[in-house]
Amino acid sequence: MMIKVEEVINELIKPIPEPEKTVDTLIVGEKDKVVKGIGTTFMATYDVIQRAIDLGVNLIITHEGIYYSHHDQTDKWIQDPIYLEKRRLIESSDMAIFRLHDAIHLYKPDGITKGLLHSLDWGCYVEKNDLTESILTLPAMTLGEFAEYVKKKLNIPYVRVVGDVSQICKRVAVSVGYRGGGENAIPLFVREQLDLLITGEGPEWETPEYVRDAVQQGRKRALIFLGHAESEKAGMRYLAKKLKSVYPTIPVHFLDEKPVFQII
Amino acid sequence: MMIKVEEVINELIKPIPEPEKTVDTLIVGEKDKVVKGIGTTFMATYDVIQRAIDLGVNLIITHEGIYYSHHDQTDKWIQDPIYLEKRRLIESSDMAIFRLHDAIHLYKPDGITKGLLHSLDWGCYVEKNDLTESILTLPAMTLGEFAEYVKKKLNIPYVRVVGDVSQICKRVAVSVGYRGGGENAIPLFVREQLDLLITGEGPEWETPEYVRDAVQQGRKRALIFLGHAESEKAGMRYLAKKLKSVYPTIPVHFLDEKPVFQII
Repeated sequence: MMIKVEEVINELIKPIPEPEKTVDTLIVGEKDKVVKGIGTTFMATYDVIQRAIDLGVNLIITHEGIYYSHHDQTDKWIQDPIYLEKRRLIESSDMAIFRLHDAIHLYKPDGITKGLLHSLDWGCYVEKNDLTESILTLPAMTLGEFAEYVKKKLNIPYVRVVGDVSQICKRVAVSVGYRGGGENAIPLFVREQLDLLITGEGPEWETPEYVRDAVQQGRKRALIFLGHAESEKAGMRYLAKKLKSVYPTIPVHFLDEKPVFQII
Repeated sequence: MMIKVEEVINELIKPIPEPEKTVDTLIVGEKDKVVKGIGTTFMATYDVIQRAIDLGVNLIITHEGIYYSHHDQTDKWIQDPIYLEKRRLIESSDMAIFRLHDAIHLYKPDGITKGLLHSLDWGCYVEKNDLTESILTLPAMTLGEFAEYVKKKLNIPYVRVVGDVSQICKRVAVSVGYRGGGENAIPLFVREQLDLLITGEGPEWETPEYVRDAVQQGRKRALIFLGHAESEKAGMRYLAKKLKSVYPTIPVHFLDEKPVFQII
């Protein structure tokens, strides 16, 4: 059976109503090409694209944009040699690249958060899935134990933590990506009676400083920043698994990357 | 000589023309109170305010807002116990708090970047000071050596680094705060022929992923994220020094804080 790029895209966006505005788009490639192999990834780096080519993949599904801008505003670096070299690699490879960002976040529940909860083995502790986070009551552990647990389960070398590592936590919100900003995150602590928020990233002096003030006041608040990619790639790994069952005749790969930062 | 709060504020904003819009404001306190002690800080945490009270400070000059929002949009947590407790502490203390953000960034050169360069002992290597960064040609070191150097000079426990730690760098841009976003930072590499950008923070998949792609292509690019506070507090420390010379009769303190994150 010949599956075309467009059919895979339609499968991916099928769960949600047609949006008025979206960043999800076929960044490069033709809709009617036959799919020989699929690769899902958090963000198609230069190396991810090379590995995809080597694996015979001709459709990459990337969660984040490939040119370093959420709204693809690349006009300021359209002559940059790194940008141009990446374009050359893609154009010489007959690769299609689809960005799946808004749609997967709009799955019910959010497909990226669901993948993270799956990797954390926490699916059975979810009390509710809101639009931007899931709320869980977990077996009690200290903040330090939570940090070690998520590192081990997600196979990541470090997390950034705010709070008293000996604080016992059990009421936890899990969110992904850039949802650590104050406007989203701070109101959750009171509304959901949280001990701990686990998320991707956010501005450093909003939610982190709120949690520090809380601890300095002797109140229970804690925060773990997993990293943006580290919070979202489990969702793209989970998607690869799902696509394997939808298209059993097409090879489907999850294309992993190392953490972008080294801690020195 | 009796110095009033208003006179200190006027001294601080004197170097710049009156702005149309600014986040700089007397957050709390009265303009005509006599200043008994001044404290400068990156962001007045609960603990910083307590220390200020203990030191007899009645005017805190904070670079970032004290309620976790750049534009002071706190309506979503105006009933939050952490917010309320911080307000109570301030209101019970007869403290004035002035936010000095936009003005000091508009000093020529930027007062925050200047303080950082001073702490790094790099003042003599500056080739130019642009609006949002300074450009330097430094004695050649590897990226790893640069990371160790800035940690030692700024007394910070870790930095987040992207790139090959053995890469030799000498052409460097230094910027502060949230200026690590792609729109500001990516164009600098070509325009200023940078080997290395040292800045505060920025979204993780913009500039960091651009630098990773460059390295994967075998090109020279490197990035150090110091942390937002770590990149800006040297500027507030430098300001304390300056205020001491302007007001030799008033005690002036720089109120330091620990890094908001622990790495686990």
